[in-house]
Amino acid sequence: MAGSETKERKILVAVDESEESSYALSWCLKNIVAENSKDTLILLYSKQPATLYPAMDGRGYLFSTEIIASMEKYGNEMAESVMEKAKRLCKDDHDVKVETRVECGDPRDVICQMAEKLGVDMVVMGSHGYGMIKRAFLGSVSNYCAHSLKCPVLIVKRPKSAASASAPAPNK
Amino acid sequence: MAGSETKERKILVAVDESEESSYALSWCLKNIVAENSKDTLILLYSKQPATLYPAMDGRGYLFSTEIIASMEKYGNEMAESVMEKAKRLCKDDHDVKVETRVECGDPRDVICQMAEKLGVDMVVMGSHGYGMIKRAFLGSVSNYCAHSLKCPVLIVKRPKSAASASAPAPNK
Repeated sequence: MAGSETKERKILVAVDESEESSYALSWCLKNIVAENSKDTLILLYSKQPATLYPAMDGRGYLFSTEIIASMEKYGNEMAESVMEKAKRLCKDDHDVKVETRVECGDPRDVICQMAEKLGVDMVVMGSHGYGMIKRAFLGSVSNYCAHSLKCPVLIVKRPKSAASASAPAPNK
Repeated sequence: MAGSETKERKILVAVDESEESSYALSWCLKNIVAENSKDTLILLYSKQPATLYPAMDGRGYLFSTEIIASMEKYGNEMAESVMEKAKRLCKDDHDVKVETRVECGDPRDVICQMAEKLGVDMVVMGSHGYGMIKRAFLGSVSNYCAHSLKCPVLIVKRPKSAASASAPAPNK
């Protein structure tokens, strides 16, 4: 790409536990990130907050503090596991500069807010970060972001034939 | 990008008469197309068909053949003008291999069908190919394509501050 050797780009990649997300990151590494560039990949994971349900009598919470602590622990472990996998993909491909961020909240809001806050040049995401049922209720993350983000958005779909998330078909 | 010197990628760029489209093409040239790559940019323009309205009595058409011929002439001239501008942008930036295609039909269908038919690696488009009123009736082209296309889709938004379509802000 023109001027890739001198330009420092910030590319935000939304990562989660899905195979679509891993595929999008791999595709980005193979097709967008220049080998000797000064690109920085910012891997962003949106952690779901431990939801609090007010009890029916309004005096307390349905979840005990132990359960909430356990949910938070699970969320932190999941974030760590996703980030480790994502960093390994970056390392395996070529040694691109990587930053990681874990934020708490709805992925749609987190991605848009962080893209704005960090002033990134581009956002990369898989097309199906949610499962089918959750997506039906919450709507598509990529649709929302494509509409709301002010910077360019790359939506990468994982072909059904893709055997491995780390081996994007277009580069074979 | 990894392997950009050996890989031949086909990148479909949807072009139209809008400044958003020119901006998307320029952004793509500066951020996606490698300088010494074998990338081919396929510039695709969707020409609106001269619409035929059946007359109220069902015996003929509301538009005479002269008017239809005139509309077709206008459509062809518009396609030519858009393509000339797009090719100039490609030439100005760096001498990337360019193919042009003019197809007749709704841009949403044309883009999805051609991407599939040509087996492209990626589709690039501006976010607002339609005017505000037309968009309200027809829906967003980019939304439709992001949902329907099987390959990665890059949606490039033109910042409101962009003074010139040929000078994308992220590269300044």
